[in-house]
Amino acid sequence: MVSIKANFRHLFALLGVGLLFFQVTANAQTAGSPWKSQGVIHTSSSPYAKLHSVPISAVKMGEGFWAARMRTSVGRSIPTMLQLLEEHGVVDNFRRLTGRNKAVRTGPVYTDSDIYKWMEAVAFVLQSGDRPDLRATVDSLTAEILAAQEPSGYLNTYYVAERQAKRFAEMQRSHELYCLGHLLQAAIAYYRATGNRKLLDGGIKFADYLVRDFGPKKRPALTGHPELEMALVELYRTTGDRSYLEFAGYLLSGVERERLKLRDYEIKYMFSGKPFTSRTELEGHAVRAMYACSGATDYYLETGDGAYRATLETLWQDMVTHKMYITGGVGSRAEGEAFGEAYELPNAQAYTESCAAIANMMWNWRMLAATGEARFADVIERALYNGINSGMSLDGTLYCYRNPLESTGEQIRNPWYETTCCPPNLERTFAALPGYLYSTSADGVYVHLYHTSSLDWHLENGTGLKLSQETNYPWGDAVTLAVTPAAPSEFSIWLRIPAWTSRATATVNGEPAQGEPKPGEYLQIRRRWNAGDAVRLVFDMTPRAVVANTRVRESLGRVAIERGPLVYCLEQQDQAGGETIFDVSLPIGADAGKEFTVEFRPGMLEGILVLRHKGIASAKPLSAEPLYQPLERAKRRAGKEIELTFIPYYAGANRGSAAMQVWIPYTLP
Amino acid sequence: MVSIKANFRHLFALLGVGLLFFQVTANAQTAGSPWKSQGVIHTSSSPYAKLHSVPISAVKMGEGFWAARMRTSVGRSIPTMLQLLEEHGVVDNFRRLTGRNKAVRTGPVYTDSDIYKWMEAVAFVLQSGDRPDLRATVDSLTAEILAAQEPSGYLNTYYVAERQAKRFAEMQRSHELYCLGHLLQAAIAYYRATGNRKLLDGGIKFADYLVRDFGPKKRPALTGHPELEMALVELYRTTGDRSYLEFAGYLLSGVERERLKLRDYEIKYMFSGKPFTSRTELEGHAVRAMYACSGATDYYLETGDGAYRATLETLWQDMVTHKMYITGGVGSRAEGEAFGEAYELPNAQAYTESCAAIANMMWNWRMLAATGEARFADVIERALYNGINSGMSLDGTLYCYRNPLESTGEQIRNPWYETTCCPPNLERTFAALPGYLYSTSADGVYVHLYHTSSLDWHLENGTGLKLSQETNYPWGDAVTLAVTPAAPSEFSIWLRIPAWTSRATATVNGEPAQGEPKPGEYLQIRRRWNAGDAVRLVFDMTPRAVVANTRVRESLGRVAIERGPLVYCLEQQDQAGGETIFDVSLPIGADAGKEFTVEFRPGMLEGILVLRHKGIASAKPLSAEPLYQPLERAKRRAGKEIELTFIPYYAGANRGSAAMQVWIPYTLP
Repeated sequence: MVSIKANFRHLFALLGVGLLFFQVTANAQTAGSPWKSQGVIHTSSSPYAKLHSVPISAVKMGEGFWAARMRTSVGRSIPTMLQLLEEHGVVDNFRRLTGRNKAVRTGPVYTDSDIYKWMEAVAFVLQSGDRPDLRATVDSLTAEILAAQEPSGYLNTYYVAERQAKRFAEMQRSHELYCLGHLLQAAIAYYRATGNRKLLDGGIKFADYLVRDFGPKKRPALTGHPELEMALVELYRTTGDRSYLEFAGYLLSGVERERLKLRDYEIKYMFSGKPFTSRTELEGHAVRAMYACSGATDYYLETGDGAYRATLETLWQDMVTHKMYITGGVGSRAEGEAFGEAYELPNAQAYTESCAAIANMMWNWRMLAATGEARFADVIERALYNGINSGMSLDGTLYCYRNPLESTGEQIRNPWYETTCCPPNLERTFAALPGYLYSTSADGVYVHLYHTSSLDWHLENGTGLKLSQETNYPWGDAVTLAVTPAAPSEFSIWLRIPAWTSRATATVNGEPAQGEPKPGEYLQIRRRWNAGDAVRLVFDMTPRAVVANTRVRESLGRVAIERGPLVYCLEQQDQAGGETIFDVSLPIGADAGKEFTVEFRPGMLEGILVLRHKGIASAKPLSAEPLYQPLERAKRRAGKEIELTFIPYYAGANRGSAAMQVWIPYTLP
Repeated sequence: MVSIKANFRHLFALLGVGLLFFQVTANAQTAGSPWKSQGVIHTSSSPYAKLHSVPISAVKMGEGFWAARMRTSVGRSIPTMLQLLEEHGVVDNFRRLTGRNKAVRTGPVYTDSDIYKWMEAVAFVLQSGDRPDLRATVDSLTAEILAAQEPSGYLNTYYVAERQAKRFAEMQRSHELYCLGHLLQAAIAYYRATGNRKLLDGGIKFADYLVRDFGPKKRPALTGHPELEMALVELYRTTGDRSYLEFAGYLLSGVERERLKLRDYEIKYMFSGKPFTSRTELEGHAVRAMYACSGATDYYLETGDGAYRATLETLWQDMVTHKMYITGGVGSRAEGEAFGEAYELPNAQAYTESCAAIANMMWNWRMLAATGEARFADVIERALYNGINSGMSLDGTLYCYRNPLESTGEQIRNPWYETTCCPPNLERTFAALPGYLYSTSADGVYVHLYHTSSLDWHLENGTGLKLSQETNYPWGDAVTLAVTPAAPSEFSIWLRIPAWTSRATATVNGEPAQGEPKPGEYLQIRRRWNAGDAVRLVFDMTPRAVVANTRVRESLGRVAIERGPLVYCLEQQDQAGGETIFDVSLPIGADAGKEFTVEFRPGMLEGILVLRHKGIASAKPLSAEPLYQPLERAKRRAGKEIELTFIPYYAGANRGSAAMQVWIPYTLP
C-alpha cells in the first residue's frame, strides 16, 4: 500500500504539467462564458474555500423527494406568487416611478426585495434548463425595474418623492442595502443562468454608487438588515472587482456605531453595527443574524481572516448547542423575530421563520465550503428536510412564516403575508437545490445530499467526471453511485455519513470500502476510479427517539421521533382512536426504534412513510385535571393503550389546520 | 341538632325586626361618618355580596410576616417612590398646567395614574392610623392636582395644549378613563381614611362630565385599559348615585365596537370593546383582563346579573385550570403583556407582571365577596404570598415588573421603570392588607388570611365582636383565635382551611370542633360564643412536591416545592457545592415532603424558613452535552449526590441577581 501511494505521488508530481493542461482544457469549455461554471456561490477561486460549488447546470435531478417538491414549486408556487406580487402592487411600485402606473406605493419598506427574490428563484430554475417563458418574464421585469433606476444608480421604490430626503438617513430600518443585496443576488443568478448582464449591470451601478460615496472616511453605511454583505462578496467573485469585497468588509467591521448613534438594542437586534468579530453569541433578529454570518463566512472564504473564522465557530457552536430547533429552525421569539436565551426553545411559541431556517442553510453551506466538515452538511440536511421544507404546502400555494413545533390548530399556512419574504425565499432555495448535492475539492468530489441525480462535471485537475446517483432517500436506506471518470484516475470520493444514523455500510463494486463509515463524518474513498465503478451506501434508518438537553426548558420529559433525516410529529387527524394528541404519552425504552411499524403510504400527503407505535392515553382527559397537584396524586393517573401514528413534520398542516406536536411526553415502559 | 337549627331559624324570623334594630344601632356608630365603616371595597349594601368587607381601621396587625413587609413599604418604599415620581416629573406634569413649573410634560400617557396609585397607598396607610406628615403630603398633592382640573371637570396632564383635540378621540390608547379610575380609587380611599372629600369631589366632577356626555345615545366611550369600571361601582357604593353604576354597566356592555371602529385584535388586547358577557376565555393584556373581571364582579355584586356571574365563572375556571402560574401570577407573554394559550406557562419567559398578580387578587376578593367560597381566597393567598410579594425587594426600594419563575441571572429588580405602574400598586396592596383578613356575613365572621392581628368590629346583627388572632404563619402551623363577642351569642366563625394542606385540625376550647376541616373549604364553627372562647387551628405544613398538568408545556418532568402558602425556589448562591442549579435534579418519591430538612434562619433574607433535600448533580455539566441525542445515550448520564437548599420564591433576587429556578427536574429515587 505504502509503495503504491508513494508511486502515485511521484506520478502526480511528474504529471503536474500535464494535469495543468487538463484543467485549462476543462476551463476552456466555459472560458468564453465564465458564468456557466459558477455555482450557487462561486468559490472556485476563493483562496480559503476547501470545497468548491459545482454549477447547477452540471446536476440533473432524477425522480424523487426533492424533484417532486421542485416541480410543485416551479409549476405552482412560482407562477402564483408572481401573480400575488403583482396583485399587491410590488411591481407597480416600480412602474409608477416611470409613470406607467398611477397607484400610490403599497406595502412595507422592503417589498422590492420580494420581487428580486422571486427573480432569483426563476434564475436558478433557468440554471437547470431553459424555460423561454420564464426567461421572457424576467427580462420584462428587468426592464421595468431598471427603468426606475436613477442616473446615479440609486434604485429603491420607497425612498422617492417626499421620502427622498430620508435616503441613507435611517439605515436601521430602511432596508435600502438589503434590497440592493437581493437585487444583486437575483442579477448574479440570472447572469449565471443566461449570460445576460442587464440586471447585473444595473446592480453594479447601484453598488458602485455605494462604494464611491460611503465608507470610513466618507458617509457612514450600515446594513440595518444584513444581506448585502454576502451579495457584495458574490459580486466580487463574479466581477473580480475587489472593492466590493472591501465594502463587505467595511459593513462587517461595524465601525459606524458612533457616527450613526446606534443604540445597544439596535446593535443586538440588527446583528450589525458593531464589529462582527466582537460577537460572542447569536442574539437579536434571527434572519439578520444568519445573513450576517453567511456574509461573514463569504468574507472569510476570500480573506482567510482568522478572527472571522474564530467568531464564526463560536457562533455556530452557540447555535447548535443552545439555540437550534430539532427541525433546523432558529429564532425562538416572536418579539423581535429573535433568538432567545440558551435553551429557550419553546415549541408552540416557536417563531422559527422559514427565512431563518433558509439562512441557516445558506450559512452552513458557506461553512461547509470553508472546512469540508460534515457537521455543517448535517445542519443543512436537518434544516432543508424539516424547518425549510415545512414552509411550503405540498400543493405549493400556502406558506408558513412561522414553523412551530406544536400547534393547537392555529392556521400557520397562508397564501400571502404582508411581509412576504418567506415564499420567494423558499422558491429560490428549492430551485437552487441541485447546486447543493455535490462539491469538488482539490483531491476529489464530495457528495453532501442523497437524491437520484447525475453530476456531469470534472475534477479540479480537469478530468471529466460523471456521477450517477440512485436512491429512494429519505424513504429508502440505500444509495448507489455509478462513477464514470473520463479516464481512469485516482481521486477521492467523500460520502457524507449522516450524524443521525447509528451505523452505515459502504461498498465499492460489492467489496467493503476502505475505512469505516463514521456517522457525522465524510467517508473518504480514495482509489483509482474506473468507469463502471459502483459505490453502495446503506444507512441504518431505524426510527429514533431523541431527547433534548435537560436544560431545554420546554422539552424535558419528551421525545422527538426521527427517521433518517426527517423529524416526525403527531397530527390529530391521524390518531384513529380520536384521543387528543395532548393527552397521550409514548412508552419507549432502550430499544426505542425497533418497536415502530414503518409503512410507506403512496397516496397519503404526496407519499410519506408513516410510523406507528404503541401509546398511552390518559383515561380522563388531561384538561379535566387540575393545573397543579401533589406529585403523589398525579402518579396515580390511569391510562389506556392506544396506537399512535406519526407523519413527517414537513407534511403537517396540509389537510387544514390541526393540532400537532413534535415533542411527545414519554414514559419508560 | 336538627331541632336546634330549626329553633334557631324560627328565632331568627321572630327577631327579624329586632335584628334590623341592632344593625341600625351598629351603623349608627358611624352614621355621621359613613366613611369610617367602609372597607377596601364597600359591599355592606351590595345586594349580591354574601360577604362584606370590614374597614381597615377595624383590624390591627400584630407582629409577623406581613407587618414587617408593611413596615418596609411605609418606611422605605412609599417615601422613596414619591421622591422618584417627583424626580421623573410626574407631579410636575400637573404643576406645569397652572404655570408653577416650566418643564415640558414627561413620561408616557398614563403617568397621572402613578401618583394617584401612590396616594391611594397612603390613604390605606392612613386608614390604619393617622400619620399627619403623610396626610399633609396628600392634601398638598390634592391641591396641586385639582388646580389642574378644568372647569368642565376634565383632568389629565397629557391631553392638553396641542393634544387637546385628541381628547376622547383615541380611547384605545389614551388611558384617560384609566387615569380617572385611579383618581377615583385614591379619592375614595382617602375619603375613607379621613372623611376629606376634596379629591373625591374633584373625581366626581370628572365622572359627572363623562356620565353627562357619553353613552349609547351620546358620544361613545371605551376603557382602552379597563379600570374605571370598578372605580365607578365603588363611587356608586360611596355616593349612592346609581348613574355611576349604570355607566360602569355601559362600559362593560361593549356596545361601541362599531362607532369606535374597533378591530378584533384591539378587542382582544384591551379586554374591552365587546360585551363582557360574550367573553369565553382570558386573553390579551393580562392587567386589562383582570381589571375588567374585577369591575364586572363589582357590577354583578350590585346587579345580580346572571350573565355576568356565568361569564365570571367561565373566565375564572379558564384561569385556574389553564393560565395561572403556581405563584398566582398571570400573563405569560411579554408580547402584549398578555395571556397565552391554555397551558402556555413558560417559566424564564414568564411575563407575570406584578400588577397582574395584584389585579388577580383584587378580582378574587370580589369573587369571594360574591360567593363566600374558599377557592377564591386560595388564589388570593397564592398570589399575595408569592407573585405579588416577589414584586417588592425586601428592603422596599427595588421592584419587579416581571416576576419570572426561572432566571439565568437577569436583573429583574429595579428602582424605577418608565412605566411605573407596579411599585405604587404593590404599596397600595400591602397598605390595604388588614382589610383582607376578615369579612362578615349575615351569619357570622370569616377568617380568610392568617396573621397575628385583632379585629374590633361587630357582627351584622350589631353585636360587637373582637377577634384576637395569634400565629407565626406562614412559618408556623398553628393559629389561635380568642373570640370576644360583646355579649354571648350564636353565630358562625368560618375558618379557611387552605387547599394546600393535606389535613388540618380545629379545636374550640381544647375540644375538637364540630365538622371536619376540609382543605379548600371554610370550616364553619357555629355555636354560642362567649368571651374567652378560644379556637385553635393546626395545618399540616409538610413541604410538598407539586407537579403541573402534563399539558403545561414547560413544566413536564419537573416539580415545584411548596410549604404552607409559599412557593419555594433554588437560588444559585445557596447551593453549597457550587453546582449550577440548571444541572441538578431532585430525586423525590411518594412520601415527597418528609425528606426535607426544615430550618428557620432568622438572619437570612429578613428571616426565612429554608428547606434542604438531597439532589443529584450531573457528573458532567449539562452545557457540555449535545442539544439533542438519542434517548438511550442520554439515559446513561452519571450523577452525584448533593444537597439542595430551597428558599421562598418571594425572597429571591435579594442578594443581587442570581440564577433561580422554581420548577426542578425530578427523578424517582
